[in-house]
Amino acid sequence: MSHAILLISCPDRKGITATVTNFVYQNNGNIVHADQHIDTSGNYSKTSRGVILSASEGHPQVGNTFFMRIEWDLKNFRLNRAKIRGHFAKIARKFGMTWELYFTDQKVRTAIFVSRHLHCLYDLLLRHRQGQLSCEIPLIISNHSDAKAVASDFGIKFMQVPITPLNKSAQEKKEIKVLKQAMVDLIVLARYHQVLTRAFVQTFSNKIINIHHSFLPAFAGKNPYLQAFKRGVKIIGATSHFVSEELDAGPIIEQDVAHISHRNSLEDLVQQGEDLEKMVLSRAVKLFLQHKILTYGNKTVIFD
Amino acid sequence: MSHAILLISCPDRKGITATVTNFVYQNNGNIVHADQHIDTSGNYSKTSRGVILSASEGHPQVGNTFFMRIEWDLKNFRLNRAKIRGHFAKIARKFGMTWELYFTDQKVRTAIFVSRHLHCLYDLLLRHRQGQLSCEIPLIISNHSDAKAVASDFGIKFMQVPITPLNKSAQEKKEIKVLKQAMVDLIVLARYHQVLTRAFVQTFSNKIINIHHSFLPAFAGKNPYLQAFKRGVKIIGATSHFVSEELDAGPIIEQDVAHISHRNSLEDLVQQGEDLEKMVLSRAVKLFLQHKILTYGNKTVIFD
Amino acid sequence: MSHAILLISCPDRKGITATVTNFVYQNNGNIVHADQHIDTSGNYSKTSRGVILSASEGHPQVGNTFFMRIEWDLKNFRLNRAKIRGHFAKIARKFGMTWELYFTDQKVRTAIFVSRHLHCLYDLLLRHRQGQLSCEIPLIISNHSDAKAVASDFGIKFMQVPITPLNKSAQEKKEIKVLKQAMVDLIVLARYHQVLTRAFVQTFSNKIINIHHSFLPAFAGKNPYLQAFKRGVKIIGATSHFVSEELDAGPIIEQDVAHISHRNSLEDLVQQGEDLEKMVLSRAVKLFLQHKILTYGNKTVIFD
Amino acid sequence: MSHAILLISCPDRKGITATVTNFVYQNNGNIVHADQHIDTSGNYSKTSRGVILSASEGHPQVGNTFFMRIEWDLKNFRLNRAKIRGHFAKIARKFGMTWELYFTDQKVRTAIFVSRHLHCLYDLLLRHRQGQLSCEIPLIISNHSDAKAVASDFGIKFMQVPITPLNKSAQEKKEIKVLKQAMVDLIVLARYHQVLTRAFVQTFSNKIINIHHSFLPAFAGKNPYLQAFKRGVKIIGATSHFVSEELDAGPIIEQDVAHISHRNSLEDLVQQGEDLEKMVLSRAVKLFLQHKILTYGNKTVIFD
Repeated sequence: MSHAILLISCPDRKGITATVTNFVYQNNGNIVHADQHIDTSGNYSKTSRGVILSASEGHPQVGNTFFMRIEWDLKNFRLNRAKIRGHFAKIARKFGMTWELYFTDQKVRTAIFVSRHLHCLYDLLLRHRQGQLSCEIPLIISNHSDAKAVASDFGIKFMQVPITPLNKSAQEKKEIKVLKQAMVDLIVLARYHQVLTRAFVQTFSNKIINIHHSFLPAFAGKNPYLQAFKRGVKIIGATSHFVSEELDAGPIIEQDVAHISHRNSLEDLVQQGEDLEKMVLSRAVKLFLQHKILTYGNKTVIFD
Repeated sequence: MSHAILLISCPDRKGITATVTNFVYQNNGNIVHADQHIDTSGNYSKTSRGVILSASEGHPQVGNTFFMRIEWDLKNFRLNRAKIRGHFAKIARKFGMTWELYFTDQKVRTAIFVSRHLHCLYDLLLRHRQGQLSCEIPLIISNHSDAKAVASDFGIKFMQVPITPLNKSAQEKKEIKVLKQAMVDLIVLARYHQVLTRAFVQTFSNKIINIHHSFLPAFAGKNPYLQAFKRGVKIIGATSHFVSEELDAGPIIEQDVAHISHRNSLEDLVQQGEDLEKMVLSRAVKLFLQHKILTYGNKTVIFD
Repeated sequence: MSHAILLISCPDRKGITATVTNFVYQNNGNIVHADQHIDTSGNYSKTSRGVILSASEGHPQVGNTFFMRIEWDLKNFRLNRAKIRGHFAKIARKFGMTWELYFTDQKVRTAIFVSRHLHCLYDLLLRHRQGQLSCEIPLIISNHSDAKAVASDFGIKFMQVPITPLNKSAQEKKEIKVLKQAMVDLIVLARYHQVLTRAFVQTFSNKIINIHHSFLPAFAGKNPYLQAFKRGVKIIGATSHFVSEELDAGPIIEQDVAHISHRNSLEDLVQQGEDLEKMVLSRAVKLFLQHKILTYGNKTVIFD
Repeated sequence: MSHAILLISCPDRKGITATVTNFVYQNNGNIVHADQHIDTSGNYSKTSRGVILSASEGHPQVGNTFFMRIEWDLKNFRLNRAKIRGHFAKIARKFGMTWELYFTDQKVRTAIFVSRHLHCLYDLLLRHRQGQLSCEIPLIISNHSDAKAVASDFGIKFMQVPITPLNKSAQEKKEIKVLKQAMVDLIVLARYHQVLTRAFVQTFSNKIINIHHSFLPAFAGKNPYLQAFKRGVKIIGATSHFVSEELDAGPIIEQDVAHISHRNSLEDLVQQGEDLEKMVLSRAVKLFLQHKILTYGNKTVIFD
């Protein structure tokens, strides 16, 4: 059976949860998951430890912000899908909500971008085959040809789009066209080693997930393992995040780390790091596919 | 300002969340935290991987179970504390709820039991002094005298109650009397090396938190570090759990582990393990003090 | 260039390290890795904390035990391979050493056994293809046919050997014959769901690595994820170990864990656990291939 | 019984290990611990994955570097302490070694600097009292008076040295004088919130251990928890490192992290972080006291 999922954010005030859950209940829905979060950092002034967080620094609102994810079983629900949207719009207006509505039987259409390191691509495709990632993958795009055979093995359309500084803008326009035709809702950069243009990022705002092979904000940019090796850190990490206009600075979805020592060569860091990358990226993709991520400002709420 | 907290569990059905949140809203309460969980394991029959979980094995109910924690600000709330209890009782009856009501300005009165290893006791007292543990600690009880000076340093009443196999039952009766007089709601066994009698455990059902120095169910019973050392495991752990009648088998609240190697001596295991014990026990105590733990069967729901 | 590796264990006494390193130096070898470990647990009597470890419990020796791994570059080494063996045998006799000699250009021949869960098999084969596992894989054996296509994709010989209680002994004899013909030095049970006979285990003593999907010794035997789910643990784990005659009780090579919560279904445990299995098994295999594991009694020394 | 410990680093060449272990053996010493490490990053040019590490970037040497820690029992050793130094100096000259010699019965004299957050101070003092830190603590220095009572409880001399931008240089000169009089070999900055002058740092080069409350190099400088909170990271960390002239940029000794979520307030980050700080700092101090740390360039070799 299909479920409906609402993702909501709005200024906090009394009655939001009651109103939303009543909406589901009055129409005979059975809630299977509900989680809410209230961000109070807009109110931060001075903690007991003397730390000051000005409301104006990245948190424009003065009051609290309310976030909610609610999922209910559509069996015997009195409203059809079009009407859910219409009826809920009235509630949303009343509370000034930003909201998204999803149905679990409509799978997210996902494109994977990759360059020459194929471990994350393999990992995603194997998880998809094993049923861990509930999505459709109509397309793999690469600036190189290395992934062509893998795409073929898994029966997925492969498109090679070579990128140079000169042709990038034109090539991305082609990609955007293809991605729109394929009705793609999520783009996964599974070690895609090209910086996307501002135009591309804005076209798919909060719909592009990247894996960066360090615990951001440390070691942003190129060659993070080499940076880590040179700095002599005792942990390495990986970070999955939404792509924003500033490089490696978008909202973080998931991070993980592994301990290393002086015994580990740069090659060891790369190999251990690849395991982190696979896990951290696949977890972020899974959270997106389950509509469990809300972004606000440069942060994420994860309804796990 | 004070908050009210409701902890609820009942058979799942439509309308529970809506009814509870409406109760708060209609009486002009502002929800600051709400989390729910639906346990469906009573329904488990056969997963896609062929694992079978019979409904009769430890999960007597056939349907789903609903759990909720809701916390709201009492400022301008229309019902006083006595009336909250009365009004909510009607809702609870309707849904067959097991429920508890707390107010954040009524601090949990906590007694600490300890034997001769004092690291967890020190840790709890320092956290309490730093404001991390919001409780009152009227009493420290020990079967030895080692902790007497520590109790005195922190200005807490100390009671030495020597235990022998012969006097245990009588001594525990004395302890129960003292604990009741001190209106103790939580007993923390901070490395208390005596098995409590069934009578004692039943008197404080789900109100006694123990720290066991292994990742249970491995290495239950005596000398877990020695057991771990002999078995040659590569991780050690600590487990905080409610004390039930069966030794080291009660509902688990929190666990953590650390990696070890052949280089580590038994002494190293003990020292690293003590760090785990302190963190795992203090986290469990904190969750209890915040009324974030619900037990069902032999498991816990942690509303973090 | 090729390296030589010596793995040594013997009763501890003065001069072992000096003698072994001199052997390499006098013959013009350049040591690239040397690590030693002295196990003193045979001496354990009573630690400062009152823990008693009797020398007779699992540690038959009364004195200390010495372990060493030494690896040197064979470039310009004065002894050829046959002579290394002959010359070192004299040193070994003098100190009563148990020893093994390897050369890094002689790759370990590895057979993989698998049943119906293929994630560990895929993981090993992909790592092998990417150059992370320096071995030859002449053979995949299964009691089912599921892995046949995977073996074919990777160009590895596949052998299906159905096992029933009645035919097990006879079938294993066939397997042993094939494994010996293929000169297999390592058998990896990558989720092979058959208990091997004592005869089979003895034939490949300390050469069979299994992955068990729990943090042993917790949840040995069948359905560990289901056992963990029912017990309500807050961490799950995976353990790679040498197979010994007692089920899931052999020397542990590597373990890792992941945190879970009440929100996680049994399916979630299985999926998260599979990631642990892949990492823990591949690390153990890699350590074996690099000749970094020494077993003693029921424990391992890992020269990482 | 007392042990001797040698910490050695030099350009790698044949025969170093043999020569050093022979020195111990010929003089009738029993080696209880020996570990070596060869850093080959000076040779790095291009890995199989296309990562380039120029020898000139932070690794001035072109060849490999050899590191060793060797510890032996002095019982029946033929050389007295003065002679050990003299005899070994000849070996050291031959191989161009940088070396340090320690004896385990000469405890490191340790001064603790602290400002107003006392959790790390308490932690170190309790571990010291429990016998986990084998050192002498003659002195606690603070720019505030908060730690005075703690110092008094533990019977340690307390010195308050208020620091202003104007008096810093003069006050540090006073401190240096006192520290030298007290024969201090290690200074632990247990949350000391003053940047030390270049002169002070140079006086105690590689003898000052700081705890920074982030996973460096992320969030160097002020208010790392607030920086982490604003960035929306999913992990927080702590780093212990030697203090060098550049702020928060010295050789890293130990790091650890904890997972956080959007549910965690800034206060939560601070509280969880303090647990990390305590563990990471105490581990670094312990490694120093056991003479297990070697620095080279801006990195450390940890002989654990």
